[in-house]
Amino acid sequence: MENWFTHFGTELLGTFILIILGNGIVANVVLKNTKGNNAGWLSITIGWSFAVIIGATIASALKGAAHLNPAVTIAFVVNGWEKNIGSLGLIPIFIIGQLIGAILAQIVIDIFYIKHITNSISDNKNNNVLAMHSTGPQYRNIFSNFFCEFFATLILVVGIFSLSNWFSSATWMGPIFVGFIVLAIGLSLGGTTGYAINPFRDLCPRIVHQLLPLKGKSNSDWSYSWIPVVAPMLAGIMGGALFLI
Amino acid sequence: MENWFTHFGTELLGTFILIILGNGIVANVVLKNTKGNNAGWLSITIGWSFAVIIGATIASALKGAAHLNPAVTIAFVVNGWEKNIGSLGLIPIFIIGQLIGAILAQIVIDIFYIKHITNSISDNKNNNVLAMHSTGPQYRNIFSNFFCEFFATLILVVGIFSLSNWFSSATWMGPIFVGFIVLAIGLSLGGTTGYAINPFRDLCPRIVHQLLPLKGKSNSDWSYSWIPVVAPMLAGIMGGALFLI
Amino acid sequence: MENWFTHFGTELLGTFILIILGNGIVANVVLKNTKGNNAGWLSITIGWSFAVIIGATIASALKGAAHLNPAVTIAFVVNGWEKNIGSLGLIPIFIIGQLIGAILAQIVIDIFYIKHITNSISDNKNNNVLAMHSTGPQYRNIFSNFFCEFFATLILVVGIFSLSNWFSSATWMGPIFVGFIVLAIGLSLGGTTGYAINPFRDLCPRIVHQLLPLKGKSNSDWSYSWIPVVAPMLAGIMGGALFLI
Amino acid sequence: MENWFTHFGTELLGTFILIILGNGIVANVVLKNTKGNNAGWLSITIGWSFAVIIGATIASALKGAAHLNPAVTIAFVVNGWEKNIGSLGLIPIFIIGQLIGAILAQIVIDIFYIKHITNSISDNKNNNVLAMHSTGPQYRNIFSNFFCEFFATLILVVGIFSLSNWFSSATWMGPIFVGFIVLAIGLSLGGTTGYAINPFRDLCPRIVHQLLPLKGKSNSDWSYSWIPVVAPMLAGIMGGALFLI
Repeated sequence: MENWFTHFGTELLGTFILIILGNGIVANVVLKNTKGNNAGWLSITIGWSFAVIIGATIASALKGAAHLNPAVTIAFVVNGWEKNIGSLGLIPIFIIGQLIGAILAQIVIDIFYIKHITNSISDNKNNNVLAMHSTGPQYRNIFSNFFCEFFATLILVVGIFSLSNWFSSATWMGPIFVGFIVLAIGLSLGGTTGYAINPFRDLCPRIVHQLLPLKGKSNSDWSYSWIPVVAPMLAGIMGGALFLI
Repeated sequence: MENWFTHFGTELLGTFILIILGNGIVANVVLKNTKGNNAGWLSITIGWSFAVIIGATIASALKGAAHLNPAVTIAFVVNGWEKNIGSLGLIPIFIIGQLIGAILAQIVIDIFYIKHITNSISDNKNNNVLAMHSTGPQYRNIFSNFFCEFFATLILVVGIFSLSNWFSSATWMGPIFVGFIVLAIGLSLGGTTGYAINPFRDLCPRIVHQLLPLKGKSNSDWSYSWIPVVAPMLAGIMGGALFLI
Repeated sequence: MENWFTHFGTELLGTFILIILGNGIVANVVLKNTKGNNAGWLSITIGWSFAVIIGATIASALKGAAHLNPAVTIAFVVNGWEKNIGSLGLIPIFIIGQLIGAILAQIVIDIFYIKHITNSISDNKNNNVLAMHSTGPQYRNIFSNFFCEFFATLILVVGIFSLSNWFSSATWMGPIFVGFIVLAIGLSLGGTTGYAINPFRDLCPRIVHQLLPLKGKSNSDWSYSWIPVVAPMLAGIMGGALFLI
Repeated sequence: MENWFTHFGTELLGTFILIILGNGIVANVVLKNTKGNNAGWLSITIGWSFAVIIGATIASALKGAAHLNPAVTIAFVVNGWEKNIGSLGLIPIFIIGQLIGAILAQIVIDIFYIKHITNSISDNKNNNVLAMHSTGPQYRNIFSNFFCEFFATLILVVGIFSLSNWFSSATWMGPIFVGFIVLAIGLSLGGTTGYAINPFRDLCPRIVHQLLPLKGKSNSDWSYSWIPVVAPMLAGIMGGALFLI
């Protein structure tokens, strides 16, 4: 029972912090009249990297597994959940914790930047309001976009599994290094679709965007929404399977 | 007695270094004709992050508790001062050390950049002179500004308490990681009010700005000044209380 | 036999990740209409640095020697292969693994950014397409270009050999610190020729560029191609020999 | 005798790498037609920081004391050389090693960037050629410039002495953290005079600039040259003395 609560709580809190800090930097860079307006791609990728580092470190310090991403969770399912984590009943606990954490986070970050959001909308910068919620591709092409999200997530999962014992003398480096991987992915592989590489990082904020009661906002681009969900999940499955060999 | 002196000295020195380096980077970016003029938000947030890292590491190395922030101190008071730090009589010692350190630091950084300050004033960039002292909101709204400062500080305090045992095999990482959290907060949550998240980081430089004997300087924006004091203190109280559960 | 497979696999995988992430950041900065378009030299050097950190860490974690660079391999040959690595028969294994990894990586990154590549070509930015494959000098001068590539690689090799025992209490820092050295080289010594400092990082993507079946692409600048191959190899030989003394 | 050679060699090599990488980044940012042209103050300060990290780590790994700066050496002299380092006869060994290392480094970096230097001169950007050698103030004022160099160096020396035992469980962090301090100083206190904070970092490249056989180069600004020598030395003396108490 305690284990149940620990995993639910740390996934929820860790994902909450991840999305708050992650979409917080996007908001700061793209919304109107922020301090960090137009601070560039390096700022966005460093911001997301530290979102991972802080979220995953806090979740780990509170004795969680710190997945914060259903693509990582499914990779561990494929790779052997009971060996890696414990009771199979924990799987939905992880997923639900991540889901709630991500939705709550986006609601809070929308409240946080509300004046900047409404002013971006009246400034006709609706795209930027959607961008601080969910990713979107530079060129729309199902195959190419799918490949990019799939491959970027695969690098993440391969990294996580490769390094599982590498920091055993300094366990605190594990969550930090995952943030390093996400920085590298963002800088190098984020240029095409904006590196969702986490289904809930994209889906949950998109749900919040859909529900946002703001006049003049754009549509939530649901036609693209399945790619940053399905491609990372598939990469998680394949990444987890690779390390069964 | 030695304990008294250690805490007073390390809080004073650590806060001094924190504010020197923290408002130093703001000065370098916003004042006229500096080497770092217009170096951007990423520079400011990295600079403040390393201000925390250097100040807190030096204070820790000299055997201090390295709060350097009354919102952190009050969080430890609420969470159980005697358990966490020691004699209750040390509380004012911490606060006074921080207060003196912050005021001295702002005086020194004003002397350091004096030519750039006076030239910014004659260039009619009074806002920038205030900005290298204290924070100000992009949109003035009591509720929104208060919420931003409260929430950003809460993330800081939750981070500090969550991680209290996490770096026990590498204690030197503690102050560095707090700097990481401040970097993440700056990048992601600093876009609205400029992330004071430390009452004295805002109040003490504002006092110095008020007293600055420079003709043509702007007013010190006292109407806003209570928010970056009260909101972080409240977040410290709530953060400390959360970890009593 | 297992050793054979481990070295082949880790050199191939590590070099694959190195080139994917390394030329990925260049693609993201120079190609048309990417998220990271025009993100600047700091982004490129940080991206390449983390390409090294991620690639070398993963190769090390999987029990490889993590050279990922024939100039480093030849340095170990000169310095005493059997003492440093093992059987002489492993030398071609390292080289072939690196070669295949680099070629595969460039093919994947070209597929990844394909829409941006074709649009850069139709936009008459052929130089940028070549730049996301291979390096090129700012001023063409055999002696100067050769000296730059030679000297920058020498710094890398001297760094690697100097530090061989330095991180023995924290072996995970080794690959990270090599990434730090590459960051420093990129920032400080990359300004003239673009710091190949790795023959295959330049040659293999150039081969892929030559074979790229895209109408309107530029030539692959083979007249320059020998410098980023020969100069780093010579530096590897000299660096390895220096540490024999 | 071996000790003599170790200290001479590591000070020379470490200072060589420090100045190569340090003035290399300045060259890359300010000279004409470099890859890193105009990459900004953040690039310069990160570049110098990693110059310190790489130079000091290599010197430390090769069993040197890794001062690389006569202001640090004099601080140790004042603080008790025999207690800290060893025989008094080593003092000139340190100084001469640093001097030779810095001069050689500037000669090499001038050769490295020679095409960019000559083109900057013909482009009438003589200031930039001097800037990749030595520092210069934004506003010329003896008192203010002296104070800035003195105070910035004092922060460096206080940091070094405060932290002398802090990284005892991870000695490799020592040189890295000194690089962090130099990053913070550059970002926050480098805006006025360009943070020499090391007499030879300024003096030796200025000598090389003076001797540079290039038509059309500017004068070497000797009238300013004493400040970045005397102020850091005085700060070293005071910093060393402070930690006698």
